[in-house]
Amino acid sequence: MRIGVLTSGGDCPGLNAVIRSVVHRAVVDHGDEVIGFHDGWKGLLECDYRKLDLDAVGGILARGGTILGSSRVQPAHLRGGVERARGHVQDLGLDAIIPIGGEGTLKAAKLLSDAGLPILGVPKTIDNDIASTDVTFGFDTAVTVATEALDRLKTTAESHQRVLIVEVMGRHTGWIALHSGMAAGAHAILVPERPFDVQELSDVVGKRFEAGKKFAIVVVSEGAKPRAGTMDFTSGETDIYGHERFTGVANQLSMELEERLGKEARPVILGHVQRGGTPTAYDRVLATRFGWHAVEAVHNGHFGMMTALRGTEISLVPLAEAVEQLKTVPAERYTEAECVL
Amino acid sequence: MRIGVLTSGGDCPGLNAVIRSVVHRAVVDHGDEVIGFHDGWKGLLECDYRKLDLDAVGGILARGGTILGSSRVQPAHLRGGVERARGHVQDLGLDAIIPIGGEGTLKAAKLLSDAGLPILGVPKTIDNDIASTDVTFGFDTAVTVATEALDRLKTTAESHQRVLIVEVMGRHTGWIALHSGMAAGAHAILVPERPFDVQELSDVVGKRFEAGKKFAIVVVSEGAKPRAGTMDFTSGETDIYGHERFTGVANQLSMELEERLGKEARPVILGHVQRGGTPTAYDRVLATRFGWHAVEAVHNGHFGMMTALRGTEISLVPLAEAVEQLKTVPAERYTEAECVL
Amino acid sequence: MRIGVLTSGGDCPGLNAVIRSVVHRAVVDHGDEVIGFHDGWKGLLECDYRKLDLDAVGGILARGGTILGSSRVQPAHLRGGVERARGHVQDLGLDAIIPIGGEGTLKAAKLLSDAGLPILGVPKTIDNDIASTDVTFGFDTAVTVATEALDRLKTTAESHQRVLIVEVMGRHTGWIALHSGMAAGAHAILVPERPFDVQELSDVVGKRFEAGKKFAIVVVSEGAKPRAGTMDFTSGETDIYGHERFTGVANQLSMELEERLGKEARPVILGHVQRGGTPTAYDRVLATRFGWHAVEAVHNGHFGMMTALRGTEISLVPLAEAVEQLKTVPAERYTEAECVL
Amino acid sequence: MRIGVLTSGGDCPGLNAVIRSVVHRAVVDHGDEVIGFHDGWKGLLECDYRKLDLDAVGGILARGGTILGSSRVQPAHLRGGVERARGHVQDLGLDAIIPIGGEGTLKAAKLLSDAGLPILGVPKTIDNDIASTDVTFGFDTAVTVATEALDRLKTTAESHQRVLIVEVMGRHTGWIALHSGMAAGAHAILVPERPFDVQELSDVVGKRFEAGKKFAIVVVSEGAKPRAGTMDFTSGETDIYGHERFTGVANQLSMELEERLGKEARPVILGHVQRGGTPTAYDRVLATRFGWHAVEAVHNGHFGMMTALRGTEISLVPLAEAVEQLKTVPAERYTEAECVL
Repeated sequence: MRIGVLTSGGDCPGLNAVIRSVVHRAVVDHGDEVIGFHDGWKGLLECDYRKLDLDAVGGILARGGTILGSSRVQPAHLRGGVERARGHVQDLGLDAIIPIGGEGTLKAAKLLSDAGLPILGVPKTIDNDIASTDVTFGFDTAVTVATEALDRLKTTAESHQRVLIVEVMGRHTGWIALHSGMAAGAHAILVPERPFDVQELSDVVGKRFEAGKKFAIVVVSEGAKPRAGTMDFTSGETDIYGHERFTGVANQLSMELEERLGKEARPVILGHVQRGGTPTAYDRVLATRFGWHAVEAVHNGHFGMMTALRGTEISLVPLAEAVEQLKTVPAERYTEAECVL
Repeated sequence: MRIGVLTSGGDCPGLNAVIRSVVHRAVVDHGDEVIGFHDGWKGLLECDYRKLDLDAVGGILARGGTILGSSRVQPAHLRGGVERARGHVQDLGLDAIIPIGGEGTLKAAKLLSDAGLPILGVPKTIDNDIASTDVTFGFDTAVTVATEALDRLKTTAESHQRVLIVEVMGRHTGWIALHSGMAAGAHAILVPERPFDVQELSDVVGKRFEAGKKFAIVVVSEGAKPRAGTMDFTSGETDIYGHERFTGVANQLSMELEERLGKEARPVILGHVQRGGTPTAYDRVLATRFGWHAVEAVHNGHFGMMTALRGTEISLVPLAEAVEQLKTVPAERYTEAECVL
Repeated sequence: MRIGVLTSGGDCPGLNAVIRSVVHRAVVDHGDEVIGFHDGWKGLLECDYRKLDLDAVGGILARGGTILGSSRVQPAHLRGGVERARGHVQDLGLDAIIPIGGEGTLKAAKLLSDAGLPILGVPKTIDNDIASTDVTFGFDTAVTVATEALDRLKTTAESHQRVLIVEVMGRHTGWIALHSGMAAGAHAILVPERPFDVQELSDVVGKRFEAGKKFAIVVVSEGAKPRAGTMDFTSGETDIYGHERFTGVANQLSMELEERLGKEARPVILGHVQRGGTPTAYDRVLATRFGWHAVEAVHNGHFGMMTALRGTEISLVPLAEAVEQLKTVPAERYTEAECVL
Repeated sequence: MRIGVLTSGGDCPGLNAVIRSVVHRAVVDHGDEVIGFHDGWKGLLECDYRKLDLDAVGGILARGGTILGSSRVQPAHLRGGVERARGHVQDLGLDAIIPIGGEGTLKAAKLLSDAGLPILGVPKTIDNDIASTDVTFGFDTAVTVATEALDRLKTTAESHQRVLIVEVMGRHTGWIALHSGMAAGAHAILVPERPFDVQELSDVVGKRFEAGKKFAIVVVSEGAKPRAGTMDFTSGETDIYGHERFTGVANQLSMELEERLGKEARPVILGHVQRGGTPTAYDRVLATRFGWHAVEAVHNGHFGMMTALRGTEISLVPLAEAVEQLKTVPAERYTEAECVL
């Protein structure tokens, strides 16, 4: 077989581990040929690729980023390129394309698959927001990085009698906040799924101080918002420079809490550190298994699907099902975390 | 309610996180009282315990070990102590006992449960060998520690043209070897479930060198054994001092490979480092959820069960089912790992 | 002897290691009594303290923060409290006070020492800005945390063809930027000691992209400023809310570079993570040695001094000398770092 | 200029950082040409090398091992090869050779330098045993790895009421044991410089248990030996297989303590993990500075010297002085560490 692989969307630890695993399984075990498209869908549309043999994937298992590069392609752009993509697939004699990406990538994958191209997706997201799979690689690394930062911040907060508002990734879902907050024993966890009442939060933190505790840690998803009417809030589209990125939820919340509590409150925004660098062992194993099973799937003629973790098994689910809706934090999981407040 | 908790068996990162979670959920949310028995079943048999309030579990979430201490009690000893245990449960007015432990502990838990005591188990094992749960806390930390060591060892092996034989934990099952070996890209993984053929191994490694590679990493479970007749092997019961621990499989294998390959081969035994220290974020979250659900279970009158992870959900399984047999590495999982050889 | 110890100023990994070492050396080896004042100088002024025995310092060696708490006291306030302090020293029968702190603390220490109190200082600063000592504890940890973050960020920058502007601590000196930038192979390092020319920076980064490189990492001290006239710059005193903290140098620089280069540029502000959490082995050893030698010094009647590292030896230097001026990055060190651009 | 660089001796984190720094400084700043000899002195003797440009050293700063490979060459062999080396230096038109290595390498460097070759050495050793420099790169990484392992082991020892005997690297000097033991708060530290009295050790540990402590950690250098007559001891030259490596000091000591104390004692041998993998930030900075100054030195015509850290400055010292004797742990440093027992 001749297999094309590409990585698309934001950075995610484990991308290289999937690429390596696809090459190992396909080339060594099946005698396939593998090529890698550069910079995501762009590489497919522009027929920009290189051959991937064993040497090409040597030493990349533990490396962050993606040796193939990535980009974000507008769906409209891709829609207009279906025939171009089909032409390149035929010219290159490809039997399968394995795109590795998040929700947007998988939607694009479905589009091409619906148009008849032999697509088998591999899900990636540090946000854990893809339905139909228990989890994907990248999430564990993001949670680990956030937890290590929270561990460090706790001692400082304690020594200086402070509230720290720590903003973690998660525009639409609160999984990173939930897991890192539970792992580090945060005193409040704010997620996009549940608009927060700032007075309620202030009360929770205030009671800690009244009880003689010297600090509090609040973990907040970048996409968390206050319940309407409980606090002035700019959802961050623009600042005075016309840039959106400088007044996030942690910044605004820290000012608000400082005023309500009369205690020093400081924002910390963890940012891109969460999505880069060497993947955890968990993510490397999962990514390696996804790559292995992706090759098996295409050899078995399964297309229009993506790999998924269900319990301890890797299975295949229809792309249609996977992109239907975001996987959000269910109320029960949030309740579990509340017990640690 | 009045709940007793204890930790039993070998050390495992996440024990303190379970204890803390039980106390938080029971005391804060249900108004229960929690006591902790010292040194495992011994504490129950000798009525040696202390009260656990919120202060008692402050700051222990990320700490390795167990604040309650642990011990290994012989089953026979426990069997003779059932009435004593029952008496203490009655005297202390306990509505539930939550033992946290591995296979041996859960068997003991079943024994007491069969005798009518209100037992709800929480499984722990760094070895991942407990059936009926996808995984338990402690395993991810052990794999992480082993993988970090393998990452470090790789560069040395490469620079010095060596074979490194790295022995990881796992007396009866090869899970830690399988996952850390996959995560670090080991060139061979030897597990107790599949006796190895030393000549086959030597050939695999030899071919790497012939292909111009400068090193090889072999990960071997401490319980792995050669296929009968393929190599002289003492299963490690005794050495010249009457101690078992100095000639493990890695030591013997490194000598054997050195002779067969004419290349320097060095054993590295990771040892106890794998079972101590701060738990990973993954293990802290799982341990916290187990503690939370254990309290829910006893409030719902579910006894003779243990908490289990199934996919992303925590459920309850009968103790009988859990201790029926060890969870070993299935052939398919081993095949997946082989592709990385 | 009776010795009082206190920690003052911002958090710094290694404070607890000094406290522990003072107690071990004084109590075990000399049979002294040690008390710890709470919340820095405040504890001395208000005679708020507790006894520190071996148990009190058990398990704190690797813990971030300070078990004694800290605070920032205004020099004027302290000046007015000299007699009160003297009174408490006499009432408590103290033979020596060991304040552990940064530049402000050491100035206060000098004030009290000049007034005749038996003071022996221990320097701490994550910024490495205290003269007369090669380095103090805390700095290595801060550099390590920053370097690990930079390692992670590099792969993301590379995969997404971006400029990352990473802001590290350092209001007045660029040591953390210099060392973490060198350690991580940053492509430009901006420090307070050398106002930067934004066009020069833009050229350096631009040339990298022209040479086919896909990303650039710029490390910038929070206190770095553009050379006058090279770029619009608000030095961060206030934003629209009257808060200073939201438009730091990294934010402004990333907008500026984005415009000049036409490449995506993103700011990352590492923040408080750099000053919290478990100290590195290096900092623990240095902190332990400082504590040990502080006790020796007071037993030898050396006051008005502070401990200092000179080469591999711990020596004593007059407080006067230590607080005379900040230790800034000398031109030669900056030149060394430039070679890596 | 045309400069040759080589790495020789055991693995040491930071070797690649030196190579990279030499190339950056020489090629970018001076317009030099740099070649790298393969596998240490062997490469020079056999004229086996490759050109090192900026691309060749891309991405290696944080990578363990050495991209040039290493080997141990017998001094006698090298002595016989002086003329061959001289011939290659002339044929290749080399103006300088920069060997990076430990004591053996520097002795060889001196030999060639005395024979008139233009040699400028860079010291490396994880053991910290090279005189004339405060420290070299590699040592901080080794101490960091050992300390992290000790941190993990402590919780296990505590939970299981055990003595752990942890063997760290150091055949002739106890620096790694001293620093990691101080950093982790070990209860005894045994070094080659001071033969230990096993009864004294047993008493120290026994007293801890009597005082109600539940565990003890003993850190021992691989080269530490008992004082003559205090305990049966095989210095590890051979075991029953004719191999030296299986009965080290930790193994023998743990059996001995177990018998004397009647407490479980377990050996842990950290092994090669200490000398591999990514260097710490400290080691990367030092290695980078050494590389930079090595290039400066050869441009200034300084030969027969090696780079050295003195305080915060990099200076040059004669090779003769550097190899005169090993730098051992002085009595005062050991006394400092004792206070933590």
